[in-house]
Amino acid sequence: MTVGNGVVSVGVIGVGNIGSVHAAQIFRGSIAGMRLGALCDIDPRRRETLRAEYPDVPVFADAEALLAGSDVDAVIIATPHPFHAPIALSAFAAGRHVLSEKPAAVEAADAVKVTDAAKRSGKVYGIMFNQRTDPLFAKARELIRSGELGALKRTSWTVTNWYRTQAYYDSGSWRATWNGEGGGVLLNQAPHNLDLWIWLAGMPSAVRAVCSEGKYHRIRVEDEATIYAEFPGGATGVFITSTGEAPGTNRLELVFDRGRLLLENGRLNVLRLGVSEREFCFTSKAGYALPEISEENIVLRPERDGHSLILEDFARAVLTGSPLLSPGADGVNELSLSNAAYLSSWTGKRVELPLSPESMSEFRTFLAARREAERAGRPAPNPACASSNTVDIKPDEYSARWTTRW
Amino acid sequence: MTVGNGVVSVGVIGVGNIGSVHAAQIFRGSIAGMRLGALCDIDPRRRETLRAEYPDVPVFADAEALLAGSDVDAVIIATPHPFHAPIALSAFAAGRHVLSEKPAAVEAADAVKVTDAAKRSGKVYGIMFNQRTDPLFAKARELIRSGELGALKRTSWTVTNWYRTQAYYDSGSWRATWNGEGGGVLLNQAPHNLDLWIWLAGMPSAVRAVCSEGKYHRIRVEDEATIYAEFPGGATGVFITSTGEAPGTNRLELVFDRGRLLLENGRLNVLRLGVSEREFCFTSKAGYALPEISEENIVLRPERDGHSLILEDFARAVLTGSPLLSPGADGVNELSLSNAAYLSSWTGKRVELPLSPESMSEFRTFLAARREAERAGRPAPNPACASSNTVDIKPDEYSARWTTRW
Repeated sequence: MTVGNGVVSVGVIGVGNIGSVHAAQIFRGSIAGMRLGALCDIDPRRRETLRAEYPDVPVFADAEALLAGSDVDAVIIATPHPFHAPIALSAFAAGRHVLSEKPAAVEAADAVKVTDAAKRSGKVYGIMFNQRTDPLFAKARELIRSGELGALKRTSWTVTNWYRTQAYYDSGSWRATWNGEGGGVLLNQAPHNLDLWIWLAGMPSAVRAVCSEGKYHRIRVEDEATIYAEFPGGATGVFITSTGEAPGTNRLELVFDRGRLLLENGRLNVLRLGVSEREFCFTSKAGYALPEISEENIVLRPERDGHSLILEDFARAVLTGSPLLSPGADGVNELSLSNAAYLSSWTGKRVELPLSPESMSEFRTFLAARREAERAGRPAPNPACASSNTVDIKPDEYSARWTTRW
Repeated sequence: MTVGNGVVSVGVIGVGNIGSVHAAQIFRGSIAGMRLGALCDIDPRRRETLRAEYPDVPVFADAEALLAGSDVDAVIIATPHPFHAPIALSAFAAGRHVLSEKPAAVEAADAVKVTDAAKRSGKVYGIMFNQRTDPLFAKARELIRSGELGALKRTSWTVTNWYRTQAYYDSGSWRATWNGEGGGVLLNQAPHNLDLWIWLAGMPSAVRAVCSEGKYHRIRVEDEATIYAEFPGGATGVFITSTGEAPGTNRLELVFDRGRLLLENGRLNVLRLGVSEREFCFTSKAGYALPEISEENIVLRPERDGHSLILEDFARAVLTGSPLLSPGADGVNELSLSNAAYLSSWTGKRVELPLSPESMSEFRTFLAARREAERAGRPAPNPACASSNTVDIKPDEYSARWTTRW
């Protein structure tokens, strides 16, 4: 913290799985620059528990009540996905800073609206891409941005170690539904990886994708997805994710003109070429030669959990105006990439990025149809701040669920 | 060999890069059950050299002359790709056994014709998928076929360590052209991997693909390809290959219900689950649990080069009727997969397998258009048995080019 006694008073909206973790960390004073100013949950029993656990913190029945009835400087939105955007809009309208859980919204069009509202309000808008704090990704980004590796040629990320059992999906009626959650692995688990992929490789200019809905579980949304991406500089990429593989793989490869980065098993493997491959390709007299290659292995372990670091980074930005490690505006790119993947899978077409208004509208139409079909066969999803059907968090599950697993 | 003094007399058709290696190995007696009975090359200077090197072996000016003028039992076809099928048809018509270099043809429709002709002739038809002799692939196949790993769920193969410089492509005017070679990395380098992928994972039922033509080199054919495959049992797969990455990657992953196989860095890594994942998924009470996992690493090195082993296996089949490790008929599947990938890339559509007559016809139309366009801007490709523009083979390049590189 660069200011003395500055503390941001924070309201947590939706005190379920992850909201309860944030609330507890802030309450016990683990987050520099933050104090817990309010809580809100739509579940009456949950509110009872919260009042017992946090006797001095006001507990509200919904987001609007919290925004109207408390004097918090900022809110953390930890509701199911479809409520991230509307609550963020309300919060900015009420002059509050916002830290949103990922994804920024369900539809990229809504994420754009939130970003615009944040800009107009002049308030800080952050998003919980906590894996950006992993020093291995930060190191990879630093290497890429230094320019020493040259231009990107190809990248692939297989991140299938998001294994979930049917019990996970059965733990909440909103889970893994088009109405309650708005998507599957691409919207719930993989946003971290999609964001990091963009953070490292840049934003793709077009995608083709296949999203396999209910391949491994009794759910209507996708639990496996394969994305083929084109990048503006001519690079190509593949992104594969799944919740149906035990133990699964986490392997990110980025191939450049002057080397290769490989992130796997908690290690950053760096290959460096003595010369530019592009130059070597057109000057070598030998058909099968290879440039000189050197190798380095970098092992870096996170010192603290990423959620704490993002919370503190957000508090710092509110208090000092420092740039965010994970700005809310970056949620638009991440969500555009997953929206484009769904649209490509549903239409069978290549989808260009940034999403055109026509693509956004087409996505909305397709999503609405899926929601309609789902509604016809299932009970209505829970409303905002829902947390009545949450999974009990066991301490040893914490790291497995929210940090990088290699 | 199970028969006493049986020896197959072999004619090598096309004594270029690889044909000259086969001829030399057979001539010096390195291949059990084979002797060199004839040679043929369309290049007069090459024939002069051959007559000097092999004074007792008749040298012919083309395949038809060899078939008419020699009494060899079998021929090895090592010409540019477009001549594999027509020469194989002539050879079967002339009552000869055939060992063809890969691919079986340029068009799957022609490979089917050759397979049919082989059956009618009753002669042995083998294909040079020499990487099948690698003990690591053989071990993987054995594990899969034993059933202990259960059903396939997903597979991906990134094999981008087929690096080639522009000098390689400039070394022969037929190289990397639609007319002279019939395709790029999918038709020249990756057939080994496509064949092994099918050998291990089974034949896909449909593919979508993007083939990037001239991404890394001044060539008209593709030097990078990404294939998304669907398998009959519901499994999905991705295959990525390229000749533009130095040093490139070779990583094959096969995910099953009861484990995972990972072939990389000359090692077969086996993960075994204590229970079926599918059963665990639907019986576990915990949302984030994982089944018990055990790990084994298997390292096996080839004892001899794969070409020799395939040559001896072929000789044995001719002499004893033993089943081939690499039957020519399997070339149809391999070629259908790459034909389907081209067709998908050219049309932007999903292509079903086995290829329908309509798809074969559509492929032919598209290929003809590409050849036509190429002809309009370049000299005509070399005819059969061409070897006038070959790369000098340096001894230390042998293993790098034709064996498995991890």
